[in-house]
Amino acid sequence: MCGIVGYIGSDQAAPILLQGLEKLEYRGYDSAGVAVFSEDGLKVVKAKGRLRVLNDLIDGGKTLPGTLGIGHTRWATHGAPSDVNSHPQTSEGGRFAVVHNGIIENYLYLKNHLIRRGVQFVSETDTEVVAQMLEYYDHGDILETISKVISKVEGSYALGIICADYPDRIFAARKDSPLIIGVGQGESFIASDIPAILSKTRDIYRLKDGEIAILQREQIEFFNVDCEPVEKETEHIEWDIEAAEKGGFEHFMMKEICEQPKAVRDTITPRIRNGRVVLDDITLTPEQLRRFTKICIVACGTAYHVGVVAKYAFEELLRIPVEVDVASEFRYRTPIIGENTLMIIISQSGETADTLAALREAKRAGCRVLSIVNVVGSTIANESDDVLYTWAGPEISVASTKAYSTQLAVIYLLALYIGEQLGCFSAEQIDTYIAELERIPDQIETMLAHKEDIQFFASKYFNAGDMYFIGRNVDYAASLEASLKLKEISYIHSEAYAAGELKHGPISLIEDGTLVIALATDSRLFDKMMSNIKEVKARGAAVLGLATEDKTEIESQTDMVFYIPKTSTFMLPSLSVIPMQLFAYYVASMKGCDIDKPRNLAKSVTVE
Amino acid sequence: MCGIVGYIGSDQAAPILLQGLEKLEYRGYDSAGVAVFSEDGLKVVKAKGRLRVLNDLIDGGKTLPGTLGIGHTRWATHGAPSDVNSHPQTSEGGRFAVVHNGIIENYLYLKNHLIRRGVQFVSETDTEVVAQMLEYYDHGDILETISKVISKVEGSYALGIICADYPDRIFAARKDSPLIIGVGQGESFIASDIPAILSKTRDIYRLKDGEIAILQREQIEFFNVDCEPVEKETEHIEWDIEAAEKGGFEHFMMKEICEQPKAVRDTITPRIRNGRVVLDDITLTPEQLRRFTKICIVACGTAYHVGVVAKYAFEELLRIPVEVDVASEFRYRTPIIGENTLMIIISQSGETADTLAALREAKRAGCRVLSIVNVVGSTIANESDDVLYTWAGPEISVASTKAYSTQLAVIYLLALYIGEQLGCFSAEQIDTYIAELERIPDQIETMLAHKEDIQFFASKYFNAGDMYFIGRNVDYAASLEASLKLKEISYIHSEAYAAGELKHGPISLIEDGTLVIALATDSRLFDKMMSNIKEVKARGAAVLGLATEDKTEIESQTDMVFYIPKTSTFMLPSLSVIPMQLFAYYVASMKGCDIDKPRNLAKSVTVE
Repeated sequence: MCGIVGYIGSDQAAPILLQGLEKLEYRGYDSAGVAVFSEDGLKVVKAKGRLRVLNDLIDGGKTLPGTLGIGHTRWATHGAPSDVNSHPQTSEGGRFAVVHNGIIENYLYLKNHLIRRGVQFVSETDTEVVAQMLEYYDHGDILETISKVISKVEGSYALGIICADYPDRIFAARKDSPLIIGVGQGESFIASDIPAILSKTRDIYRLKDGEIAILQREQIEFFNVDCEPVEKETEHIEWDIEAAEKGGFEHFMMKEICEQPKAVRDTITPRIRNGRVVLDDITLTPEQLRRFTKICIVACGTAYHVGVVAKYAFEELLRIPVEVDVASEFRYRTPIIGENTLMIIISQSGETADTLAALREAKRAGCRVLSIVNVVGSTIANESDDVLYTWAGPEISVASTKAYSTQLAVIYLLALYIGEQLGCFSAEQIDTYIAELERIPDQIETMLAHKEDIQFFASKYFNAGDMYFIGRNVDYAASLEASLKLKEISYIHSEAYAAGELKHGPISLIEDGTLVIALATDSRLFDKMMSNIKEVKARGAAVLGLATEDKTEIESQTDMVFYIPKTSTFMLPSLSVIPMQLFAYYVASMKGCDIDKPRNLAKSVTVE
Repeated sequence: MCGIVGYIGSDQAAPILLQGLEKLEYRGYDSAGVAVFSEDGLKVVKAKGRLRVLNDLIDGGKTLPGTLGIGHTRWATHGAPSDVNSHPQTSEGGRFAVVHNGIIENYLYLKNHLIRRGVQFVSETDTEVVAQMLEYYDHGDILETISKVISKVEGSYALGIICADYPDRIFAARKDSPLIIGVGQGESFIASDIPAILSKTRDIYRLKDGEIAILQREQIEFFNVDCEPVEKETEHIEWDIEAAEKGGFEHFMMKEICEQPKAVRDTITPRIRNGRVVLDDITLTPEQLRRFTKICIVACGTAYHVGVVAKYAFEELLRIPVEVDVASEFRYRTPIIGENTLMIIISQSGETADTLAALREAKRAGCRVLSIVNVVGSTIANESDDVLYTWAGPEISVASTKAYSTQLAVIYLLALYIGEQLGCFSAEQIDTYIAELERIPDQIETMLAHKEDIQFFASKYFNAGDMYFIGRNVDYAASLEASLKLKEISYIHSEAYAAGELKHGPISLIEDGTLVIALATDSRLFDKMMSNIKEVKARGAAVLGLATEDKTEIESQTDMVFYIPKTSTFMLPSLSVIPMQLFAYYVASMKGCDIDKPRNLAKSVTVE
């Protein structure tokens, strides 16, 4: 996730680009850059770090003349944050400059293709490939060239392109990454998101997948992938700037909940090729994998709950013993680990202090360390032997949602990858698993479409003092996350219990009207869960049941049911967590809590 | 723990003995028996099962004539519950009948000694040794004989003895097991506890360690171990019968909390000989121990929390990886176990349904199963390869206290035993550990002597809606149990958190006045805990600190501190749990809860 902007008009471009980027910093902030045309030709300035570094470098834009330019604020995916990996990326001959948001999945293939033909690359980015291809394939007709290039790239992109041959034009194209076109008085804009241009204009076009736009001061033309002209209608934006920053949502948390289908898809899709999991990012050989007698997973908070799901997935699929530890506990219990231990570290920020300390402890003990991280170039990513990135983009809300979902997705990918390397699956099994994995984003989307059911349920119970989540196996793992979400943002004391343990103590807390949320999605344990639900119902509890859509008999014992689609057991938490996130959100919202910034909590915990 | 009674007077003895035993059934109920003198001589009737089986057998005592007799209700320690192992035990020649409460630690040595001299034994009990020795050593002077026998036995005992040569007398002696003598009008009584005789008399003598009593209808004489007469004073009991059953305590729970020094001592002492841990009960060889690559511990509720402590103890002392599972989860997660796994099963009742199912699962997988159980002859004990009994006696209160403490004691014994077999310790280390282990009962006693400090603290906070327990490492393990205790009996929603995890979510629940109980007894992590205490103090929490007595700096950050004595890290939970049990008790008491029988809970969970 990155932010792109572009301006063409009669004012100085650079200050406008910087203002726009400032509004897009929520989409990434590890480096930024601009490319501007002036009488001196095409000039590119870029710098690692927050936007203010670039801002200082060009004195708020003043030092860069010219009235046409593009800009970018980066959230690293391919290539660590650095000056050279920042955007705009340029072609070898310097005729093209490109800003890009998205992931070019086949960039390595394309890059090698060009290298063999003599093209020289300077960065590690996927984006540079686009710039180089534009120059390589350009034979006069720029529209044809752009069309040709985007027909060759796989993956997602929103592109802003300028070319030295057309100093009065900006070119744009998109697929699976957002891009809007703004229409002003004698000026035009491109941007990843509305806030970037809202102080300049409220009239926009939304570019569709496969469309190409050519912007001039007074004119904007659209074409389809076959270079045929397309008619589009403008849209007038009524939002204020604050609402616009949250994409029309009231809170970043809801925005991020709704981004999950895309975030999970972005994380999964580039890693599945020809029906197999391909993890170019990691270098573990089957021999090395076979050596591991144990997998240790260390994380904190929500990421720890991903680890709990991972234990079920790995042990079931790979039959390798898995230990999951909270990082602050792992560090001080002199764990029994060594070179036959695969250590998996999970952290959204890649900077979590306890987790980082655990990583270093593991390295000292000779473990191979694989980390699952959202921020490219973060300390944990840098110090790990292998990194698998969750391509969730920046998460603004303190309560993690899309990071959880994408971390789970990486766990599944990793389990399937290792399982295939070790020969744990039949061809049929791997086909089934991969089909189910690829179905998850759509399944999440379907559930999000029914979010008002959860909102209704929340409206009945948001005043509750205490709540309990119960489940068995992966449903217990999901309960832990469900309970934490509610705690974090609604300040309701909720607790997750292994359903079979209730009767060994905590059931004494259940009285008339106590709210119990029963996760019963694991069909193998459905009957056991029904017994547990009856136990709490008999003590007067109100019960929200969560089950797969074939288990309608749950309705006989519950006050309300939310159904989730069916999938393999170990992937169920990816689906069951969605209504639980929504429930926490709506309860907190109805209680009037500060959802995006809950009291006492920080987004990234960089202290012990 | 067993119950004994005796009667001599002018009424029929058997019905009185049965009435007395009924009041002692809380001390044991796996078999019962009586021995009565009449004109037909000495007659013994005994039966496996609850007291009512014996009652039916002798028609409420009516079918047994005679006005002198002794009776017993049993809680099996040596020898499974059976008719032949029931008391009274008799000598080979039939002249002596003995009822016994306690454990004769050197009974095997004494038994073999007699067997070599031709004495034939019929039972597996330690008690039969006493009966046989009385006959073997008797040369006319009964007082000398009793004195000689009790000087030879090691361990604990309360004894009621009748002898065919003295059909008008009952003999009694005790050491470390309770025994009282009741004085009536032309009748005398012996009993383990006051309720057994309270309907007959309120005037009693308390027999002291090493004292011997000779009871006749109108006369009671006392002697010391050297057979010198002793003067004793009677005591008049004011208690009503209900209070008497609880030993003067308001609830069984407090009675059992206060029984912990004795219960732990009873569990430890017989298993330490010449400064080494001796576990006659288990048959694992050092070769077998060396084979284990993993220890799996499975239990429910409080016993599960013992398992959590055990993981720290075993991993630290033995460097063998340990997995701890809740039984209801273990069963259904297709655990990775096999013949190189030592499975440790912990259950007070030995009948816990989920735990039993886990045991059977482990057996099927080829694991060696060692169980830690309080009830001899229970299903789990029967189905295990090895059993280590916790000699806690029957636990009446639903909320477990002395079972937890004795289970921990067995864990330490086992860890030290295995560690010595595997050569994990230096001689010096083992000396230190054993000295510390032997010190625990006294240390518990010392803490119990200051229980009013906890009562005072409870009086300030018993109205709290939610409470949080935090700790790291073994303090976290103890926090889990502390929180469960409070939940079970006070119905306050409390939760235990690994202190380092607080900032990853749950700290959002801390607001002005929230009660946090911080366990900071692990000196290695004391500074980290101080930071965590500051974190919650900064959010307005009221903090009760628990620390070892050298860490007085904790007072600067807490509202109140309770100090515990120092010991090895892994044994700390045995001490830190005591104030936590007291806290739960006092809070529940002040809230007016039904402490011994909390709502929704059963003592032994024999359903899934």
